[in-house]
Amino acid sequence: MSSSLRPLFHPTRIAVIGASANPEKMGFQIYRNIREAGFPGEVIPVNPKGEQILGTTSVKSPGDLREGIDLAVVIIPAKLVPATILQLGERSVRAAIIISGGFAESGEEGAALQEELARNAARCGIRLVGPNCQGVNYPYHNLCASWPLITRRGEMAIVSQSGTVGAALIDWASEDGLGFSAFVSLGNRADVDEADLIDFFADDPNTKVIALYIEGVKDAAKFLSAVRKCRKPIVIFKAGRTERGRQAAESHTRSLAGSDAIYDGVFRQLGIHRASTLEELYDFAKALAYVPAPPGPRMLIITSSGGSAIIATDVAEEEGFSVVPLPPGLSGRLRELLPSHCIVGNPLDLTGDTDAERYRTVLTAAEGYYDVVMSIFGDPIPGASRIMPPGRCDLVAYLGGAEVERAERRLLQEKKVAVFPTPERAVRALAKRLRL
Amino acid sequence: MSSSLRPLFHPTRIAVIGASANPEKMGFQIYRNIREAGFPGEVIPVNPKGEQILGTTSVKSPGDLREGIDLAVVIIPAKLVPATILQLGERSVRAAIIISGGFAESGEEGAALQEELARNAARCGIRLVGPNCQGVNYPYHNLCASWPLITRRGEMAIVSQSGTVGAALIDWASEDGLGFSAFVSLGNRADVDEADLIDFFADDPNTKVIALYIEGVKDAAKFLSAVRKCRKPIVIFKAGRTERGRQAAESHTRSLAGSDAIYDGVFRQLGIHRASTLEELYDFAKALAYVPAPPGPRMLIITSSGGSAIIATDVAEEEGFSVVPLPPGLSGRLRELLPSHCIVGNPLDLTGDTDAERYRTVLTAAEGYYDVVMSIFGDPIPGASRIMPPGRCDLVAYLGGAEVERAERRLLQEKKVAVFPTPERAVRALAKRLRL
Repeated sequence: MSSSLRPLFHPTRIAVIGASANPEKMGFQIYRNIREAGFPGEVIPVNPKGEQILGTTSVKSPGDLREGIDLAVVIIPAKLVPATILQLGERSVRAAIIISGGFAESGEEGAALQEELARNAARCGIRLVGPNCQGVNYPYHNLCASWPLITRRGEMAIVSQSGTVGAALIDWASEDGLGFSAFVSLGNRADVDEADLIDFFADDPNTKVIALYIEGVKDAAKFLSAVRKCRKPIVIFKAGRTERGRQAAESHTRSLAGSDAIYDGVFRQLGIHRASTLEELYDFAKALAYVPAPPGPRMLIITSSGGSAIIATDVAEEEGFSVVPLPPGLSGRLRELLPSHCIVGNPLDLTGDTDAERYRTVLTAAEGYYDVVMSIFGDPIPGASRIMPPGRCDLVAYLGGAEVERAERRLLQEKKVAVFPTPERAVRALAKRLRL
Repeated sequence: MSSSLRPLFHPTRIAVIGASANPEKMGFQIYRNIREAGFPGEVIPVNPKGEQILGTTSVKSPGDLREGIDLAVVIIPAKLVPATILQLGERSVRAAIIISGGFAESGEEGAALQEELARNAARCGIRLVGPNCQGVNYPYHNLCASWPLITRRGEMAIVSQSGTVGAALIDWASEDGLGFSAFVSLGNRADVDEADLIDFFADDPNTKVIALYIEGVKDAAKFLSAVRKCRKPIVIFKAGRTERGRQAAESHTRSLAGSDAIYDGVFRQLGIHRASTLEELYDFAKALAYVPAPPGPRMLIITSSGGSAIIATDVAEEEGFSVVPLPPGLSGRLRELLPSHCIVGNPLDLTGDTDAERYRTVLTAAEGYYDVVMSIFGDPIPGASRIMPPGRCDLVAYLGGAEVERAERRLLQEKKVAVFPTPERAVRALAKRLRL
């Protein structure tokens, strides 16, 4: 299955059906985003008036497109879409992203249109994302057929039944300097669903973790089979826990939201990490992509902030880590190496006058003693990004450092060292990497 | 009691004992922050070498200070502090902030020094903050005797046993554009404690809510009395829930952390809002300061993002709100006013093509029908800040809007409309304002 999605993520040429010269219109914004994200191939605007858009003259009808276009992005009124798909099929287009709404989410008439759309696509061999979606963003191919324009490459694939939720996640990842490998907005899932995408990203070399926001699974058997085959970690936030939430979910994208308890049991059995908030979805994915799995639960906490370390200790103990005392050998060695006012214990408090070098001293001396070392930088500590070796089993939180923190956090994350904004979020995220 | 803290927050002249010309030193950074925050009175550096610091010549000894200085900020080795306090007492100084560490947190010897310090201060009638603390920041008097340099005025007073935790909170508030009324780092609490500060901020006209991070209460009777007298909302994050967390707390500032269950019961009885994470501490304080209390639980959710609204509905129902269906009158009116593809229900989905004006239409039409209206802006929606009337009982979440979101969020918050980064955090925070 997954190979059939290749034209969606690796197209050679893209047609934008419903591209517009009016900057207020979605048809302009998407066409512009595709261009500005630096898509390497041809991008052909299609517009009945033949408008000039960003210097390119539109083709007037999908029927006029030349051969060799693999992907179409469609932003036209719903009632025109099914026939347009047939025209695209004749031009040998192989995948389409239907942004337009007005399908199953809008009532009976829309539902009939959506069925016609799906039938036509199947007949032509076109794979469909949507309709009623926010598109696809695959920065490794400079493909931003979506909005907002976000292009930073990373290792988390984001699949979402809500466009906004997906956009929020890739925006956080981009602001963090971590980036994402893909964002797919599922919309009404007339064809491509979460199972297809789990299949695809399981084989995608740029993706390390798959994070999904869903309101319900579309095809349970297909989903189970895709998850079972996938060797990469999967994190899911499933909405619709309450009765009114479930009702809202069912009216949103006509999902059968189903009983939350069943989802919970199935996710547990399949080894899916379940997030219960959007921030957990992001944090868990971030830890699974960027923090190596600790070989055991013994955690050393190094800090400049006593309070932050107490908070970390509480959460670590609650989440199954063990903040065990320093072994005497290490303790003695650290007393020699550190100024006398440092509190040599676990947590190890370097106190407020510390610089980054003091962390390096401890990280080096403590090597081999613990399963995971957590560094908490509290207050402005310049140079934190210089002393953290990337790829080591290190958990980092940085807080209370204002401008210095923001600069260092970004530098660290550009080196692929994940930095969490609070000790709690750091520890809870890493707990997902702990085999209990 | 609280009047005796006036010199701490409203000094006329400040002496910085241990000011330094070396930019690497805390004694430089604090002196510079006091100057750069725009303190309106005289700031006198005191330094045994008589250094020139930022253009001002230091006084060589506290004994050489002239009369009329009400506040001293002290950053000198611990062993010199008790005698210095006596000198300051002779110069009629009335309050001191002791930044220096090396007291009770560092062992027996330090504990003895701290007792001597407290005795000397009491003898001279000097109120002490600290020792071993990150100072005091009171932007309404342009007083930043702390770090980092953060100056944005707002309505939350932050009191913290951890300097870093306090600094993180005021940094978040400042980045949000909301600001804070005060930050006090308690340190070892040789004199001034959380009860004194609850007393003071209860009467402080700039403070609407008091948020505290503590590892343990210093004097239970005094604390209970201060909380009972305080008419403003209080939010507390108490660390040391687990056995190892409690041990770490006790070694951090020699607090008697005590049993968590007892704290929980007492907080509940006193009507204190207990936060269980740093972000909750911040969110709860933000809602209590900036979002009016809803008269009842009936919530209308307006959204551009179906998914975000489902998430909000789940949390609202879980937290005691009622996302009840639209009354027929309102429903009929909205169908007339809104484009036909909008989903008129509760949640009310304006769909992805909405602009800010469509929110205004609904907010106006819905007036009087619900106890609270939550607006969720999903994706870039310019002008959100223009249509939200400040001071109304409105809850706002904004996500997935990248640059537009960041600009609008700041504009909204500068108008004192609190904006939360996820629907969950918004609803959980507002739940603190709901009388169940």
